[in-house]
Amino acid sequence: MDTFRVALGPESHPVHVGDAILDELGELSRAAGVKSGPVALVTDSNVARHYSARAAAALQKSGFVPKLIVIPAGEGSKSSAVLQDVYDQMIDAEIDRGGAIFALGGGVVGDLAGFAAASYLRGIAVVQVPTTLVAQVDSSLGGKTGVNHPRAKNLIGAFHQPSAIVADVGTLITLPEREFREGLAEAIKYGAIMDVAMLTDLERDLDRIVSRDLVTLEALVARSLRLKATVVTADEREGGLRKILNFGHTLGHALEASAGYGTYLHGEAVAIGMAAAATLSEKFGGLSADEASRLVRLIRRTGLRTEMPPKFRTADFESALKLDKKRLAGGVEFVLLQRLGKATTKRLDFGQIMAAFTN
Amino acid sequence: MDTFRVALGPESHPVHVGDAILDELGELSRAAGVKSGPVALVTDSNVARHYSARAAAALQKSGFVPKLIVIPAGEGSKSSAVLQDVYDQMIDAEIDRGGAIFALGGGVVGDLAGFAAASYLRGIAVVQVPTTLVAQVDSSLGGKTGVNHPRAKNLIGAFHQPSAIVADVGTLITLPEREFREGLAEAIKYGAIMDVAMLTDLERDLDRIVSRDLVTLEALVARSLRLKATVVTADEREGGLRKILNFGHTLGHALEASAGYGTYLHGEAVAIGMAAAATLSEKFGGLSADEASRLVRLIRRTGLRTEMPPKFRTADFESALKLDKKRLAGGVEFVLLQRLGKATTKRLDFGQIMAAFTN
Repeated sequence: MDTFRVALGPESHPVHVGDAILDELGELSRAAGVKSGPVALVTDSNVARHYSARAAAALQKSGFVPKLIVIPAGEGSKSSAVLQDVYDQMIDAEIDRGGAIFALGGGVVGDLAGFAAASYLRGIAVVQVPTTLVAQVDSSLGGKTGVNHPRAKNLIGAFHQPSAIVADVGTLITLPEREFREGLAEAIKYGAIMDVAMLTDLERDLDRIVSRDLVTLEALVARSLRLKATVVTADEREGGLRKILNFGHTLGHALEASAGYGTYLHGEAVAIGMAAAATLSEKFGGLSADEASRLVRLIRRTGLRTEMPPKFRTADFESALKLDKKRLAGGVEFVLLQRLGKATTKRLDFGQIMAAFTN
Repeated sequence: MDTFRVALGPESHPVHVGDAILDELGELSRAAGVKSGPVALVTDSNVARHYSARAAAALQKSGFVPKLIVIPAGEGSKSSAVLQDVYDQMIDAEIDRGGAIFALGGGVVGDLAGFAAASYLRGIAVVQVPTTLVAQVDSSLGGKTGVNHPRAKNLIGAFHQPSAIVADVGTLITLPEREFREGLAEAIKYGAIMDVAMLTDLERDLDRIVSRDLVTLEALVARSLRLKATVVTADEREGGLRKILNFGHTLGHALEASAGYGTYLHGEAVAIGMAAAATLSEKFGGLSADEASRLVRLIRRTGLRTEMPPKFRTADFESALKLDKKRLAGGVEFVLLQRLGKATTKRLDFGQIMAAFTN
């Protein structure tokens, strides 16, 4: 098990990454200051089949009385309706201000359960227990929580730091192949923006990673989260530096939104967005052509696509991009690479961005 | 105008109390760091008639573009449904992360709009502009926000400190008599738990206060908020000291809940709860009989009732009290007075509390 601490003043908390540490969930949480008694164990219908019994047993062993709350798998559960249902079940379980929520699952569970914890009785503890690669290398850390509004993703939400993160890489064994590969996009992102040596290691280790060797995965998850922690520690509320974590995400989000949510998995869209951002980085950021193609090659080796789909340039794509633009009053704050391992942001206008794809 | 600062680290903010300062709302908010541009001006149907045009004009003068959002007056608006409606109107107004909400009204508006600000795009700025006496002397300060769940008051909520509090005592002129008097209960509370000299001044000034002399009201509001600020600064999240602010509230809440919400105004129930807590303080806290009757006399002079109603001892009252008890695992953490101006807490069981009313 690899353990480190995210330094956020009174909201500092430990991160544990290891194999089979789901069985230590109770004691790790108690050690992080979470009180025993009635708690909620929130998970989705897929994850519940594999891991809810083990998680519940681990909690009971340490004096917790977990109420299992199972939400339907999928982005549709990040809704106000499901949130209300979670509140109802928490009231039934008599969870009080000293209680906690354990968020066992991927990004949807982490976001929804995290926001339930942020907003129940003015905030109770949450322990993030990510079981997907995207959640383990990225979304479980940083305190972003929320649900979608019918008219905007993540519109309703709050920053609410977890009391602990317990990432059991053993749970990645049951992850469907497509969801495993999308997670690699977010891991590559950390190398691209902050740590060129990580890219070299990824090139060396990719076969072992894709075959889900748990020792290599533990190192990959811990390294990604450590890199994210340095950014979040410096800029908890996304005032500045934290924006570099959006590398590949501006175009990725526009692609996800315009294709209709569900067409691309998040990481799949980010992979394409990173490749496009590499092209823009050559033009506006200082990245060399060799470096750009090295990054694209690595992404492709994971099995993820890197080319913008034909006909991506729809009215929906443009309006999704312009929505970002409008919010920033006159241009997109675009994340570019100066070189591999070094990101920067630059205000690009819509024309500059689109020109990268027209020749 | 009387101005002071609530010291809460990065969430520190100014408090302004004065007559006609509603017209300075824009500049006071800009000075507190709130950015110009699209903002929401949330108020209720009663307050809107009197003050929304003045508030909007004051905001426009300083470069804000206020979207007026009027909710129905009354506790019923502290609901998830009204909250969703507020989100919708904020999206329509294209309010982004740099935006803000101005909460113009009493406790319902402050709680609802404060929680909307806490949960919109993971948290935007809120300026509390209290227009009732309860809100001006008490609820606008401290960062408590939230809405009710059909099964529990304030179940859904968050701590979200305002960027500024702008309390215009001139708005108290239009407050209905009953709502004005309930506010005096919360002001008296601050004297009772923290500041015996304030009780002496209240005894001296009560006639001027009841006739709504604005100079005297400005002093009363500023003094109450300063006292509350010292408590909140020491204990932002109600871990310990802040509990003393619940003086009169344990029995008051049980009375409100058992009588059916709306039978008593909050301050009316608190007045009765404080008188009962004075009796319990004689028995368990060290308060002298003279001090207890001095406090009860002052409350009565405001026109508020102090005796428990006949037949208060219903199953609903007992279960409301026991709900508190259950949450604290075996007893109510009851706020008692050691003497006038000095509060403490003591674990009392249900029998001890009820015995105070049976002889």
